[in-house]
Amino acid sequence: MTLPEPPPEFDDDFRADLETLLRWRRDVRRFLRDPLDPGLVDRLLDLADLAPSVGNSQPWRFVAVESAAARAAVRANFAAANAEALAAQPDDRRHLYASLKLAGLDRAPVQLAVFTDAGTAQGHGLGRLTMPQTLEHSTAMAVHTLWLAARAAGIGVGWVSILDPEQLCRDLAVPAEWRLTAYLCLGRPQEEHADPELERAGWQPRTGRGRALLRR
Amino acid sequence: MTLPEPPPEFDDDFRADLETLLRWRRDVRRFLRDPLDPGLVDRLLDLADLAPSVGNSQPWRFVAVESAAARAAVRANFAAANAEALAAQPDDRRHLYASLKLAGLDRAPVQLAVFTDAGTAQGHGLGRLTMPQTLEHSTAMAVHTLWLAARAAGIGVGWVSILDPEQLCRDLAVPAEWRLTAYLCLGRPQEEHADPELERAGWQPRTGRGRALLRR
Repeated sequence: MTLPEPPPEFDDDFRADLETLLRWRRDVRRFLRDPLDPGLVDRLLDLADLAPSVGNSQPWRFVAVESAAARAAVRANFAAANAEALAAQPDDRRHLYASLKLAGLDRAPVQLAVFTDAGTAQGHGLGRLTMPQTLEHSTAMAVHTLWLAARAAGIGVGWVSILDPEQLCRDLAVPAEWRLTAYLCLGRPQEEHADPELERAGWQPRTGRGRALLRR
Repeated sequence: MTLPEPPPEFDDDFRADLETLLRWRRDVRRFLRDPLDPGLVDRLLDLADLAPSVGNSQPWRFVAVESAAARAAVRANFAAANAEALAAQPDDRRHLYASLKLAGLDRAPVQLAVFTDAGTAQGHGLGRLTMPQTLEHSTAMAVHTLWLAARAAGIGVGWVSILDPEQLCRDLAVPAEWRLTAYLCLGRPQEEHADPELERAGWQPRTGRGRALLRR
């Protein structure tokens, strides 16, 4: 018989590095075209699969978008959704919106569409009766896991949400019960920053608002 | 003028420790009653605030549930939702469901209700027009950030979703546009495991299904 592994104890050095990782994780939209080692992408998917999930449902599903046709469909989808978003901007922000680079679809060597399998029986529905959105939340946490693991390996990730999700499901011909959660661009970043691109571009700085804590 | 900080490079040791953290992060429901240092909880909230958010919206909001009345309301909410979930079980799983410990509400010294501010103007709606659920996903990633930072500090976290979210919003008297995303129990864990409690209890093992990758 094998003895159980002793639980790890993390030290101050690790905690400091983890904070550095959290501070330098960025939504990257400017990529080098250099291909990524397929083994590295596999490794990131393995780590993403360790994310928390409601009822142990592991509802995340991945599609590697590789063909020229599939990539063209994604770019057309983004262009249409972004034109719609631009048209919806108030007059005083439209010019700034138009100046933003909001996706790295043009160059990112690896692109992953991430879905939530709304029909999964895994987990037997536990934890989802009153809060079914926890299934999608689980997938968001898998994306975040992949994101952190990627940055730790020197790989940038950008999450594109300016997309018509139903159209993307049709274009990628995924099973009927899959719902689009995220579209991820991965690659070596052209540049590294400690501050978000949307802050540098004058769109939206970080604030202390999310940090607020009420007491009851 | 200050020179910009050079970007960090993470090494194999850090990546190995990060994987250990991901592997040993658990949904904890069995806590010691020992109080947590309030400074530590503040620190975890600071780190959670570094999570990715759509349009830099930082929509997460926290309520520390501390009073006896508020905690009693949460326990009653859980008891009702859990009774409903038990009644909805198929005959062959009802007994097993009833045997599960699904929350640490009885002992966790720190309890945080986490909300998404659906009315926030921060981010100016960027990235949310076609996929408004990205606002909630941002909060889920903040929860995950807090979860990992807590585990790195030896603190266990459990996410309780067997709750009536509207009832909890009323009981905690939060602003009208806040939506419940998660209810978190935090504390020192009674025991440490590398495998999920739902797997040990025979409810649901982890599978390779979420790891699957289609190509298009």
